[in-house]
Amino acid sequence: MDTPELIRKKRDGLVLTKAEVFDFIERYTRGEIPDYQASALLMAIYFRGMDRRETADLTEAMLRSGRVLDFSALPAAKIDKHSTGGVGDKTSLIIAPAAAAAGVLVPMISGRGLGHTGGTLDKLEAIPGFSPRLSFQEFHRVLEACGLAFGAATEEFAPADRKLYALRDVTATVESIPLITGSIMSKKLAEGIDGLVLDVKTGSGAFMQEFENARALATSLVNTGTAHGKRVHALITDMSQPLGNAVGNALEVIESVETLKGRGPSDLVELCRELTAHMLVLGNIVDSLDEGRARYDSAIASGQALERFARVVAEQGGNPRVLEDYSLLPQAQYEDSVVAPADGYIVGLEARAMGVASMILGAGRERSDATIDPGVGLVFEKKMGDAVRAGERVCILYSNDRSRVPGALDMIRKAIAISPHRVSPPPAVLERILGY
Amino acid sequence: MDTPELIRKKRDGLVLTKAEVFDFIERYTRGEIPDYQASALLMAIYFRGMDRRETADLTEAMLRSGRVLDFSALPAAKIDKHSTGGVGDKTSLIIAPAAAAAGVLVPMISGRGLGHTGGTLDKLEAIPGFSPRLSFQEFHRVLEACGLAFGAATEEFAPADRKLYALRDVTATVESIPLITGSIMSKKLAEGIDGLVLDVKTGSGAFMQEFENARALATSLVNTGTAHGKRVHALITDMSQPLGNAVGNALEVIESVETLKGRGPSDLVELCRELTAHMLVLGNIVDSLDEGRARYDSAIASGQALERFARVVAEQGGNPRVLEDYSLLPQAQYEDSVVAPADGYIVGLEARAMGVASMILGAGRERSDATIDPGVGLVFEKKMGDAVRAGERVCILYSNDRSRVPGALDMIRKAIAISPHRVSPPPAVLERILGY
Repeated sequence: MDTPELIRKKRDGLVLTKAEVFDFIERYTRGEIPDYQASALLMAIYFRGMDRRETADLTEAMLRSGRVLDFSALPAAKIDKHSTGGVGDKTSLIIAPAAAAAGVLVPMISGRGLGHTGGTLDKLEAIPGFSPRLSFQEFHRVLEACGLAFGAATEEFAPADRKLYALRDVTATVESIPLITGSIMSKKLAEGIDGLVLDVKTGSGAFMQEFENARALATSLVNTGTAHGKRVHALITDMSQPLGNAVGNALEVIESVETLKGRGPSDLVELCRELTAHMLVLGNIVDSLDEGRARYDSAIASGQALERFARVVAEQGGNPRVLEDYSLLPQAQYEDSVVAPADGYIVGLEARAMGVASMILGAGRERSDATIDPGVGLVFEKKMGDAVRAGERVCILYSNDRSRVPGALDMIRKAIAISPHRVSPPPAVLERILGY
Repeated sequence: MDTPELIRKKRDGLVLTKAEVFDFIERYTRGEIPDYQASALLMAIYFRGMDRRETADLTEAMLRSGRVLDFSALPAAKIDKHSTGGVGDKTSLIIAPAAAAAGVLVPMISGRGLGHTGGTLDKLEAIPGFSPRLSFQEFHRVLEACGLAFGAATEEFAPADRKLYALRDVTATVESIPLITGSIMSKKLAEGIDGLVLDVKTGSGAFMQEFENARALATSLVNTGTAHGKRVHALITDMSQPLGNAVGNALEVIESVETLKGRGPSDLVELCRELTAHMLVLGNIVDSLDEGRARYDSAIASGQALERFARVVAEQGGNPRVLEDYSLLPQAQYEDSVVAPADGYIVGLEARAMGVASMILGAGRERSDATIDPGVGLVFEKKMGDAVRAGERVCILYSNDRSRVPGALDMIRKAIAISPHRVSPPPAVLERILGY
């Protein structure tokens, strides 16, 4: 079938065959289909969607465009977690060592932050010396030695996704559930995993702000993983306010280490416990979520999770002494406070605005080629549901460039909502969508 | 507004401002917006449409991308006709001289045929020596001398359309009413006309096969012309069977000359009379369609229309003796017949199939860079509504390449429907949509 005919077929709402989907991805990746035909097809997919089988085929075609890792020489179950991204979302740094301590292998390959959302690699690289740029042999060795390894997505994995994503970004075709599914799952399946826990965020700070869209994406991700013979659980979780108290790279490392030491903020601890419990169920380490939750708690209480984290940091070139001496991490020169304007209860800490404020301070990137300042960010002393008095501090801004502070301060002030009536903080997990 | 934001706006169903439409067309024409963003926007327009104002703005922006002719030095009303294309549609060769004889100026700029449809330029070029490649000065002089001139669309006119059409053709975004409207009207308005009659075909041989789509296109074309201060009438006309009896370039020239001599087939004569009457109403030559019809008849009966055609052929380098001696036209070596398989009435001569059969014989182009054989084609001796006896001839195939005949014969046989029950032939004009 020629390319215009293929575009027309999708444009008219018909279902593409597996051969057609593969033909498109293969020829596009080889440069035989020009970007202008690919973008027309992407827009037709945006409007017409793809059914479950087409989405699985798209994912498989993208997966096969690159390298697929093979950890079959390691006997334990390989289980990863993927988050659709949020503000203050540092769970990877906690649950990967906790799950590894409980007996699964976590071959985690992550990306960098963009816009208001942070990235796991940026957080880890705040640790002096830490490098996620590992060869496959190095990654394999670290995974075997520590039970976890943190790698960077490279051009080897799903190159079709890299090319398609760059095109989607400039043609307003990012927000399509089958295309998002293909992008996420092709890269995750390339990790050679047995199971995957998906943390699909919803709320103002999330990519999928509406709950219904988050549920549709979670369902599509689970279906696609299942179609590829993987065990996949998706949790739809709250991103209406930042997760935990810290936003910013070194600040989030500190909060992660504190959480590994058993001193984490309750919302972060609860979500880490849930995600780890699902990873352990998928890895057949435990038979029930309750048993998985107990294993998380014991991995923390025993110090085994912290020990795993120290080990992986050292194996990947980082200075493990930062776990005991946070002053070894990048620092901020200045502190500013945002205080409550009135007595009452915090009823909103608008997550997207907090992410943007943190980006303004230098913790994130407006464009993918920007550099970040690992020392800056925000720490919240109050979260949704907390009582405050007028003048009491809600948030501390850590900065190195004074010129950036007024804009960030202004944004944070507007993003804090106080009411005389208390609201409950949202539950950590809003819904669970479980594959087999 | 950056381009992804513009695409997103249309994708989400919002209305683009005039500045946004102009910005897109201007930057795209200058090469500042890449094809991959243009094609995503075109697909979004395909799904979301454009309102009346957006469509008029698109047309204006495309029009302004190139040259606009100015015939204001010539006092009479400049009126053209445009057809959306069909099989056997040779009305331009008849109505341009007839309308000129009745007092309007007809600055007709035409294109070539593609696929199953013929093109006015291909038909005219079947006349030995005839050339539509005129400079503006030559075109102006021929128009003044003859009351009509036949020109070829060049890159000077609406270059944005040339670039956009090439992109639409390979990205399955041709079939969009606002995009078709912009394409047609930008080129027609560039002719410097006062009024325009549109012949919007419907039926199997038409671009808009469904009547409702033809009506929507006709309405959009009339609205856009009106928005630009032009008087526009649209006729929705039948293209379920070929128009007239002849399909093929020299064969259609002969049929056109016969029609100018008062010996045309009734369906062709009726449509030419209607189109000419509308041109004369738009040019304020007559006050009513009935008066316009009478002027058409007298232009034919008096020989004035034929005389105008002879004059324009001679002025544009053609041999006017072909009007008396058809053997001077390109010839076909072979004749084959398709006969009726049974007694009955012709109830269908499926126009698209007849156009494809003619193309197979060499009268048309499958691709725009193909060459054509001006001598070949089809002549129908029976049309819809006619009675036939088994073995009686329905169609003659004229060919020069024997290898092409079996395929064409087979296609024609399948496209002829005979029934024991007579159906009326469709009326020439199905609906009229009149601007002011």
